[in-house]
Amino acid sequence: MNKHQIDYTLYLCTDRDIMSTETLEQAVEAAVKGGCTVVQLREKNCTSREFYELALSVKNITDYYGVPLIINDRLDIAAAVNADGVHLGQKDLPANIARAVLGESKIIGVSANNLEAALKAENDGADYLGVGAVFATGTKKDTKPVSTESLKEICSQVKIPVVAIGGIKRDNITLLNSTGISGVAVISSVIGKPDIASAARELKALFNPFAR
Amino acid sequence: MNKHQIDYTLYLCTDRDIMSTETLEQAVEAAVKGGCTVVQLREKNCTSREFYELALSVKNITDYYGVPLIINDRLDIAAAVNADGVHLGQKDLPANIARAVLGESKIIGVSANNLEAALKAENDGADYLGVGAVFATGTKKDTKPVSTESLKEICSQVKIPVVAIGGIKRDNITLLNSTGISGVAVISSVIGKPDIASAARELKALFNPFAR
Repeated sequence: MNKHQIDYTLYLCTDRDIMSTETLEQAVEAAVKGGCTVVQLREKNCTSREFYELALSVKNITDYYGVPLIINDRLDIAAAVNADGVHLGQKDLPANIARAVLGESKIIGVSANNLEAALKAENDGADYLGVGAVFATGTKKDTKPVSTESLKEICSQVKIPVVAIGGIKRDNITLLNSTGISGVAVISSVIGKPDIASAARELKALFNPFAR
Repeated sequence: MNKHQIDYTLYLCTDRDIMSTETLEQAVEAAVKGGCTVVQLREKNCTSREFYELALSVKNITDYYGVPLIINDRLDIAAAVNADGVHLGQKDLPANIARAVLGESKIIGVSANNLEAALKAENDGADYLGVGAVFATGTKKDTKPVSTESLKEICSQVKIPVVAIGGIKRDNITLLNSTGISGVAVISSVIGKPDIASAARELKALFNPFAR
């Protein structure tokens, strides 16, 4: 998979606590069938062995559907399962250190909630940015939403793809259509819905990154 | 540092919750000055960024004193700070996977509490074994002590160095002298003592791996 040709349009972040299916694998498969173009596996409360086994299992699905798998935070888990890359928050390893460890071929995404952090992440070698929360969200209660104006400014100032994240759902996704982002990251509005595939399909149809 | 020439005699495992000093760096420096020959950094409740920064800081000390630094569980933190290796418990990544990720030059230690696990770890590419708990301990309450007979049997059956761990202190350390182990791992009996350097020095004087 060429990391410069990743389609970030509908970027799924997993959360085992809120999914509507019995297993994470079922949720991921339904989401990908519905049109998710990237899967990020995020696990904060399990052992390394459990995370590894879960990542192996999810990678079977993403490989089958030809969708990239990104591991949140843990470079070692990404390396162990040969995932396509990692996503780093501000409390994870610095992006430049992660780049030195992982090499050039792996995708490194970095969370940024303002222009300064976005430019720094790009300079440190990030391949894409996760910018948000763009809307109020139940997942990250401590973050103040990034305004549409800020999002537009970040998109115009960086050369790498920007993925908007945070509280994105059917009712507000079209507000992001003219901001310059390359994709939307979704959690509960896809894997928290009874019909995951349909929820993904509907959101993807509403989002048009090239709308003006 | 040639991983085949590591001196495992007095192997310090850190625990920020029980140390007698204000900072971990102070505790590690005192322990190394007192004769600890290996330092394992173990952190289970902090962010990756915090773990990384702590590891960088401790590595300055271990490098200065020429002592190897081992990172518990996290291969990514070990790679990020160029530590000498990792220690893997049974809930961490499998040793053979860790070996594939880290390559041959890094030290991989594996916890084993019986002969079967010890032989498997050796077969999977472990460079040394941590075997225990050899005595009842407050740190790991759920483990049944490994008898001296079992410890001797493991030492006689594997070719790699064995480090005994668990509840080792001044009063019982000499019981390990004729078991075939290459070293003793210590936590509270060193960094939990008011004078860490003296505690290390005293334990090292009592332990004689070549006693018969």
